[in-house]
Amino acid sequence: MHPLTQHFGIVLRRLREAAKLSQEDLASQAQLHRNYVGLLERGERTPTILIVDQLAKALGTTMSKLLRKVEDETNK
Amino acid sequence: MHPLTQHFGIVLRRLREAAKLSQEDLASQAQLHRNYVGLLERGERTPTILIVDQLAKALGTTMSKLLRKVEDETNK
Repeated sequence: MHPLTQHFGIVLRRLREAAKLSQEDLASQAQLHRNYVGLLERGERTPTILIVDQLAKALGTTMSKLLRKVEDETNK
Repeated sequence: MHPLTQHFGIVLRRLREAAKLSQEDLASQAQLHRNYVGLLERGERTPTILIVDQLAKALGTTMSKLLRKVEDETNK
């Protein structure tokens, strides 16, 4: 598992929980499969920028802001 | 071709040319295949965040800053 992929999953879960959304809610809003959201949160899949964009919009943020948080997690 | 994928390619080419790198130079520094850099610049492939991170580092920037430029291109 690549550290960046793992950090993406950690940040995604944190933002989803802060938004009080279930994995199913987020998947529905981002037009993704619920199982795929789980795989991303566990760092088992590396998303493309299209997926990140869909997730960011569903979480009320932007791709670059979401990935800035991932970089902060990496630099901790 | 998804607009975001296309805008990524436009920004990637712009940054590479500004850095006075050939596709081959950038591919070498980012540990990618030269043909893949060409496909990305033409918007024919959508990169994962690992690829964006490798390209950003090779261009002396960060994933989030590079994707902020892609968002600016989208919002033009």
